[in-house]
Formats: sequence, C-alpha cells, structure tokens
Amino acid sequence: MSSSDLKKALKATATEVTRVLDDLLPMGEGPESRVTEAMRYTALAGGKRIRPFLVVACADLFSVDRKSSMRAAAAIEMVHCYSLIHDDLPAMDNDDLRRGKPTCHIKFDEATAILAGDALLTKSFEVLADEKTHGDARVRCDLVSALALASGEAGMVGGQMIDLFAEDHKLKMPEITRLQRMKTGALIAVACEAGAILGKASENAHHVLHAYAHDVGLAFQIADDLLDVEGDEKKVGKKTGKDADAGKATFVSLLGVVRAREQAELLADQAASHLDIFEEKGKLLRELAHYVVNRSA
Amino acid sequence: MSSSDLKKALKATATEVTRVLDDLLPMGEGPESRVTEAMRYTALAGGKRIRPFLVVACADLFSVDRKSSMRAAAAIEMVHCYSLIHDDLPAMDNDDLRRGKPTCHIKFDEATAILAGDALLTKSFEVLADEKTHGDARVRCDLVSALALASGEAGMVGGQMIDLFAEDHKLKMPEITRLQRMKTGALIAVACEAGAILGKASENAHHVLHAYAHDVGLAFQIADDLLDVEGDEKKVGKKTGKDADAGKATFVSLLGVVRAREQAELLADQAASHLDIFEEKGKLLRELAHYVVNRSA
Repeated sequence: MSSSDLKKALKATATEVTRVLDDLLPMGEGPESRVTEAMRYTALAGGKRIRPFLVVACADLFSVDRKSSMRAAAAIEMVHCYSLIHDDLPAMDNDDLRRGKPTCHIKFDEATAILAGDALLTKSFEVLADEKTHGDARVRCDLVSALALASGEAGMVGGQMIDLFAEDHKLKMPEITRLQRMKTGALIAVACEAGAILGKASENAHHVLHAYAHDVGLAFQIADDLLDVEGDEKKVGKKTGKDADAGKATFVSLLGVVRAREQAELLADQAASHLDIFEEKGKLLRELAHYVVNRSA
Repeated sequence: MSSSDLKKALKATATEVTRVLDDLLPMGEGPESRVTEAMRYTALAGGKRIRPFLVVACADLFSVDRKSSMRAAAAIEMVHCYSLIHDDLPAMDNDDLRRGKPTCHIKFDEATAILAGDALLTKSFEVLADEKTHGDARVRCDLVSALALASGEAGMVGGQMIDLFAEDHKLKMPEITRLQRMKTGALIAVACEAGAILGKASENAHHVLHAYAHDVGLAFQIADDLLDVEGDEKKVGKKTGKDADAGKATFVSLLGVVRAREQAELLADQAASHLDIFEEKGKLLRELAHYVVNRSA
C-alpha cells in the first residue's frame, strides 16, 4: 500500500464525515438558527478530519457497518470542533484565524461562539445515544462514557486548563507529556477506542489500539509543535510561532528541532508496530502514524 | 399534606443532591484541579434544587430506586449549573452575583469559568451513561438523548441565543413564550421526563408529566420575571431590575404585574390538575406547582 492510498482514504473519509455532519446539523428557523449557523461554520469548515479517520479505520478492523462508524466519527469531530471554538476565544488562546478562516467568535461574536461550542458538545452525545448509531444500547452507553471521560476535566478540558497554567509556569518534559496526553491525546485515543467499542473488540485489541493511539497522539502533538516553529502560516492555516511568543515550553523548546523530529518518528514507528496483530488490515493505520509526523498542515 | 411537608422534602432533596454532587466531583491533583474547584464552587453553592426535586418526585411516582433518581437529578443539576456559569459570562449576561456569591468568572477567571461549564456539561452525560445510574442500558441511552435534546440548540442553548437576540428586538408574547419554553422550560421538562424514563412509565404518564412540566416551567419563569421587578435583591441572591434596565420584553412588561401573577397562578392550578391520575401520590408535585409561583427567591 502506498501513501497515496492513505491520502485517498483520508480524503474519502473527510468528504463523507462532512456530509454526515451536514445532515446532523440542519439549519433551523427563527433567531436561534444563528447558533446552528455558527456550529455549521466550524464543523463544516474542513480540516484534516484525522479523528473521524481513526474512528472509521479502527472500526473497519472489526468490519463495523460504515453508517455506525461514520456517526461516531461525526460525534467525535463535533467535540473536536467545539474545543477549537472555545480554545480560540479571547479569554483562552485569543486566536483570530483557524483553518485559514476567521475563528467562530470573529465571524459571529463571543456569545454565539460560546453557545455554538456548547451545542456541538451536547449534540455529540445526542448522536452517540441515538439507536441509529448502534443497535445495542450497551455499545451506545460505552461510547457516551468513553467520549465524556476523554473530553472532561480528566481529559481534554483538564489539558486545556493545564495549558493555560503553562503560560505562567515553565513546565518540564513529564508535565508537558501529561498536558498533551490530556489536551489532544485523549480525544485521539477515544477515536480509536470508539472503533473498538463499535466492533465489540477483544480486551487485547482494545489495549493494542490504546497503545497505538497513545503513541500517535504524542507524535501528532510533537509534529504540531514543529509546525508552530517551522511551518508556513498559509499552509498551516493558523498563526505560527505562538508558543515561542507566549514563552511556553513545548517538546521543541525542550528537545530542540532535531531531537523532537527524531522522537516523533520513533513514536510513529512504535505506534505502527503495535498493530502487528492486525496484519494486512492494519496497513492504513500504520501509514497514518507516519503521515501525522510528516504533514505540512 | 401541608406546604411544610413540601418544604421539608425540598430541603431533604437539596441536601442529598448536594452530597451526591460532592461525591461525583472529587477534587483532583495537579494544575487542572482548578477547573474541578470551579465546578464544585458552582455546583455545591446550593440554590433551590428545583430540577433535582422534580426528577426525584417524578421518579417516586413509579417507585424508582432513590440511588438512580438521585444520580439523574445530579446530572441534570450539573447542566443547570453549567448554563448559569456560561450565561453569567461577560460576553453573555455579564453578571457578577449569583445565589448571593461572586459568579464563577469573578471568583476564578473567564477561561476557567468557560472550562468549568464545559466540564460540568460533559460530566452530566458521563453520569447518565454509567451503569450505576440504571441497570438497563436502554434507559441510560434514553436519559442521555432526552437531556441532550433539552440542552442543545433546539432547547436551552437555542433559548439563550434567542434571549441575546431579544436585547435588540422587542419580542411579542408568543415569541417570549417560545424563548422561555426553550431556555428554562426544556430543562424543567427533562427533569420530569427523567423520572418517567427511570420508571419505565406508560406513554400516558409520560404525556401527563410533560404537560405538568410545561405549565410549571412557564409559571416558574413568570414568577422569575415578577421577582426581577418586585423581588428583594438580597433574598433573590442576584441583581434585580435587569430586564427593565436592558429594555427586554418579559411576561411582566407585556402583561403587567397583576395579570402576570394571575397567569402564573392559573398555570400552577392547571399543572396540578394534570396530576389527578396519580391521586395521593401526586400531592408533593401539585404543591410544588404553587410553590414555584409564590417563592421569594
């Protein structure tokens, strides 16, 4: 399998999940439709759709019905999009640009952006609990539990809280690893976990995918830090050099560019090797581990 | 049954749900514990706990295990608390005082308040999906679905969006009724619905409780508008006269104080009469309908 197969698969998933998100977020009427417009503005804006790809590719390992995995993928992408909206707010990271477009609170206003984030988070659980997502209610409950745990104060929200704390405190390597495991790693891990839950995977397969997700998540974040230092603002679609400007410690500031890149590649190799038990079926996910390290956006 | 029985029952539920919330929101360690502290600051601050009372009292109609109904009650109260935190933000209603204490963003900061709201919302779904809440996964999924629908852009969030719109647009009576049905009514309705879901109530019982909740919700809101005009700021625990200052149309500004009070009492009577099918068992809920109209805070 060549990396062009991966790129095709990524593109196909991105197109399909955008279509599903479009369906799940129909425009309403009345003054409240402003919040739906803001939800759609962010959720349909594109992006790499790495998390949806992980859900679908992991679910494919267990031959899960694509309609199920796409709905779970859309739900997790909604949580990702809500986190972008809230993280970009003036009180948080105060970003004006995202995916090359004005951020939600710039395009609309702060109040609408806060509400759009809230509604996307809420909608994600509505989608997962719906029997259209899976016929077995225990599976749906497991998806809700896993996503809530990954997104809440012990996961993504907690990670963002530490990230704000890091503006005034020089974190050391283990603390940064923990921060990133919570802030971005938890949602990447739950994307893989969702595939395993939908596929009623064995305990061992759950462990393997968790280990894979853990390494991919960290590799992804190191690549993000590298892009912040080396990336082309136009390609990346958001302001670069932010961490250095904010005086924040990152993997790159602590390890240097060369060792950070080595570390990311090591993690990608390690991630790929976890998937040996899936043999041929794991190829696309193995490719992805290297792709997240070498992307330019 | 005298109204002192209701007051005792309200107080007992409030004490118990606060204990359950305390258990569900344990303080963590590390810098992210700031967000837990902010969640606890708002969730354990007290308040009337009307929604938890509705969950438990409705569940009692069907002899639901108290441990189940208390967890659902705590989850719905978390959503109520998150909505207070986000609605109080400077970009929204910009309130400094809530339940007689500094609001979350004043006590902590805006970023922490946004994250604490996000985490409370997330936690509510985690609690509902947990098998400790109910042994039947379909029941848990129904709770998640109902709460998500009531809280999202078609419910509470949509209502808050219309409320912000109302700052620049004089709404008329049907529009205000719709706004309030979404902004406060939907969560009150889902509190009653949760009791019915937990109790696997008949379709008819679901309808009856929905009708009850609808009338109680509207009566509650009219009473709120009356308190905003007539209430004692110290007793109410938040700034009064806000709607008039903002030039917002309310039930009271459109109907006048006398007719608004009459309307609230009419709704309370109507709410109580829906519960006839429950005979003696419905007494506490009938009392509550009148209590929400005549409260002083």
